Amino acid sequence: MFESAELGHRIDKKTYRAEVPTVREGLLDAQFDLRENGKFPVVILISGVDGAGKSETINVLYEWMDPRFLSTLAFSTPSDEEREHPYMWRFWRALPPKGRIGIFAGSWYSTPIAERIAGNLSKGDLDQRMDQINRFEAMLVNEGALVLKFWFHLSRDGQRQRLKALEKDPRTAWRVTKESWARLKTYGKLQEAAGHVLRMTNTPWAPWIVVEGTDDRYRSLTVGKVVLDALQKRLADTRDQNFPVAPPIAQKIDSLDVLTALDLTLKLEKRDYETQLAKWQGRLSELARHPEFRNHSLILAFEGSDAAGKGGSIRRVTAALDARQYQIVPVAAPTEEERAQPYMWRFWRHVPRNGRVAIFDRTWYGRVLVERVEGFCTEADWLRAYTEINDFEHELREDGAIIIKFWLQISDKEQLRRFKEREKIAFKRFKITEEDWRNRDKSAAYHAAVCDMVDRTSSGMAPWTLVEANDKSYARVKILRTICERLEQALGNEKTRNRRKD
Amino acid sequence: MFESAELGHRIDKKTYRAEVPTVREGLLDAQFDLRENGKFPVVILISGVDGAGKSETINVLYEWMDPRFLSTLAFSTPSDEEREHPYMWRFWRALPPKGRIGIFAGSWYSTPIAERIAGNLSKGDLDQRMDQINRFEAMLVNEGALVLKFWFHLSRDGQRQRLKALEKDPRTAWRVTKESWARLKTYGKLQEAAGHVLRMTNTPWAPWIVVEGTDDRYRSLTVGKVVLDALQKRLADTRDQNFPVAPPIAQKIDSLDVLTALDLTLKLEKRDYETQLAKWQGRLSELARHPEFRNHSLILAFEGSDAAGKGGSIRRVTAALDARQYQIVPVAAPTEEERAQPYMWRFWRHVPRNGRVAIFDRTWYGRVLVERVEGFCTEADWLRAYTEINDFEHELREDGAIIIKFWLQISDKEQLRRFKEREKIAFKRFKITEEDWRNRDKSAAYHAAVCDMVDRTSSGMAPWTLVEANDKSYARVKILRTICERLEQALGNEKTRNRRKD
Repeated sequence: MFESAELGHRIDKKTYRAEVPTVREGLLDAQFDLRENGKFPVVILISGVDGAGKSETINVLYEWMDPRFLSTLAFSTPSDEEREHPYMWRFWRALPPKGRIGIFAGSWYSTPIAERIAGNLSKGDLDQRMDQINRFEAMLVNEGALVLKFWFHLSRDGQRQRLKALEKDPRTAWRVTKESWARLKTYGKLQEAAGHVLRMTNTPWAPWIVVEGTDDRYRSLTVGKVVLDALQKRLADTRDQNFPVAPPIAQKIDSLDVLTALDLTLKLEKRDYETQLAKWQGRLSELARHPEFRNHSLILAFEGSDAAGKGGSIRRVTAALDARQYQIVPVAAPTEEERAQPYMWRFWRHVPRNGRVAIFDRTWYGRVLVERVEGFCTEADWLRAYTEINDFEHELREDGAIIIKFWLQISDKEQLRRFKEREKIAFKRFKITEEDWRNRDKSAAYHAAVCDMVDRTSSGMAPWTLVEANDKSYARVKILRTICERLEQALGNEKTRNRRKD
Repeated sequence: MFESAELGHRIDKKTYRAEVPTVREGLLDAQFDLRENGKFPVVILISGVDGAGKSETINVLYEWMDPRFLSTLAFSTPSDEEREHPYMWRFWRALPPKGRIGIFAGSWYSTPIAERIAGNLSKGDLDQRMDQINRFEAMLVNEGALVLKFWFHLSRDGQRQRLKALEKDPRTAWRVTKESWARLKTYGKLQEAAGHVLRMTNTPWAPWIVVEGTDDRYRSLTVGKVVLDALQKRLADTRDQNFPVAPPIAQKIDSLDVLTALDLTLKLEKRDYETQLAKWQGRLSELARHPEFRNHSLILAFEGSDAAGKGGSIRRVTAALDARQYQIVPVAAPTEEERAQPYMWRFWRHVPRNGRVAIFDRTWYGRVLVERVEGFCTEADWLRAYTEINDFEHELREDGAIIIKFWLQISDKEQLRRFKEREKIAFKRFKITEEDWRNRDKSAAYHAAVCDMVDRTSSGMAPWTLVEANDKSYARVKILRTICERLEQALGNEKTRNRRKD
């Protein structure tokens, strides 16, 4: 990987002065074009050997481009808040919106490489992380992002010389610390780990660019030209940037499916309901104060057809919780800011920290339900969403989150009854719109979408609970009972968790 | 994953009889179309719970389709020969050519799942395998293949009933063995392992199809309809099925690169040459008889510009080996059979077993050299080839292969001298063609391709050795010495190997 970056590349002052103006002009033009027409985000990763010019490169990019549309995120030791979220959370937060360039000083690669060098990560675990990173970058590319991954390299001798030079110059001496010299000792380990990481993640859609870091002019000019070339090529490229997807296959050959198999006549008498409600709310209230709960977050996902009773059920849950502990996230059409980001971004931002509860009234499954049925996204988009959703939940789960997903099912007849009732009762009228009536016409398409969703995203770590919701009392108690049982299982049966941040 | 396949799906005799003729007719038509126009291979994996109807399904497909264009590969315990090759070797051998359907009874998933249930595979190692499988299937899809992965499911009760029914019927009783009942005991473990595997590998490009296996008619009709639907959709789909690739970026900003950095004046005097040649040939001859060598294979890859001296170097290597031990693989334009397969197929078939040596005179790097420069493949094809090549070498390496890659570099002037010499000398004249002269005109393009190749595929496990070859003596000795040193390192410094097959 590093052969070309150990040759002693140099650019003389004259060449540099002659070439820089063209590159700068080109970069400004491309940046303008990106903002006006490009409509895709640019993610630039700056990584590599210490002393190879990472921070200098960022400064050069700021100097040569319009800094108002650049953002740089430096990732060093994670904050308390970051530590209490899944590993990728802080990177999701920092993603640039469409039309912007985000520079990552330190990235999702930094921690795995550092842990591998420190001997805290087995080769197998490292490869697992690289697989997750490849999936994450594939998602970015599917969302239209241009991903440029720079690795600045120095030979062992080059690093030594570089540190000496920095130390000698009074303006840069402060940058050379004891740790810098210590890192020279782990040079071999870094090269081995980095070589492996770069090879595993040198994907066709997001390849690495290795740059020799010895000579300032060479490094700056290379980065400038590479960014410019990549931007221009991507701006001119109108091809579809999506991963291939197998078309959906009609597998339904009888009328039996997970929804028709539900017994919607299940119900609970009023007295039973009140006893049971009190019992499970009490239990939940206790569980939420369980000392072990502080190491977990709880994510409740509510989906269901219109008027299935999501809101009422959520209120029965929150009644048992402390308002400071939970957040209800009502998911409606995405805001402008959200539309400029990858689809999953608006859910990542609401991922709760440990000890907290997030209740989603409609969820990330919107992509494979309403967006699929209404054609708000392409077929390729919703087909790949199943994988992205599973990856998302997997990552939350690995971090200790407890994920409980409910689908509330009511019959067409019961839905009609509730719609009519809502129209009659003044304070419920706002709940029923023209759209709700239209959605009823598409019930077959929604039905198929729900079945596919359950088949493709109900996993051992985050199973779906299908709730027979024709009877509200029955539904609410089943939901509360499920939450309590899952919590008891998770809090009582604590396994070693896969914490990644420390 | 399995919810829909535990509902007790059944198809009555009447419906079955009414529907089957249409499905059969459709399948025959689609199969004809695939052969005549489709020009893509179809890979059908048949996997799942024992007793869920895997073999019955294969029989049904044979009954309903034209068996002349079907092939079924059953993979159980690997043969001796298979055991001495990398894990994926036997699957590569069995891939159907374009226009054909290959049914895999047991597949690349079987061993990892079985090992996981037996407790011989950690979760991390399992995930690593799944990542490799995802990359392999992505390659198949990039090569145009339609991949249909069936998983036949039974509920625990369903499996018990199925085994009882098979046992009761004298025609099928032989199929129920002690192992069948033993597997019922590991049902839970299988479900957990399979659920995880299916989730990890349920990719947008090669999703799983889970089918309930209880009822014969339901299962057969489902498989028939799914295969038909998938074939028809794929035959009608003219979209590009390739993964996105980042366009190549012009990174060259000075004249220094791994090739120009070579000192082509290096030479060896005749007397020195003879001493050194004898010394290293003797050493190599000993190393090839090293007892530890029986657990490794040796792969020598020779690339270089025309007239760089590959043939002569290879002869100096083979002079030190026993003819029964090595195989020279001259790589020319692919045969018709090879063109009907994924690009890497023709190299997989020559992968040596342990204790053997394969010497490739030109190699799998043809894709990123001649095919790239001459436009014999698309840009996307050669760009993704770097990853596929790295995956290939990684897999060989994991299995204990020692891979040594040589690029022989000569100057343009020296090449011209050799060309002219070849024209003059009668017995060398066959070695020089019009094409060789034409290639000289493209030397800049080849130069860039070689640099990219070294940058992207020189890894710790399989580094490139660049050979200064203006002086044939120097080149030959450097090659022999490199082989000996790498062998000594590998044979002396034996690490625990990652054997996968037993």
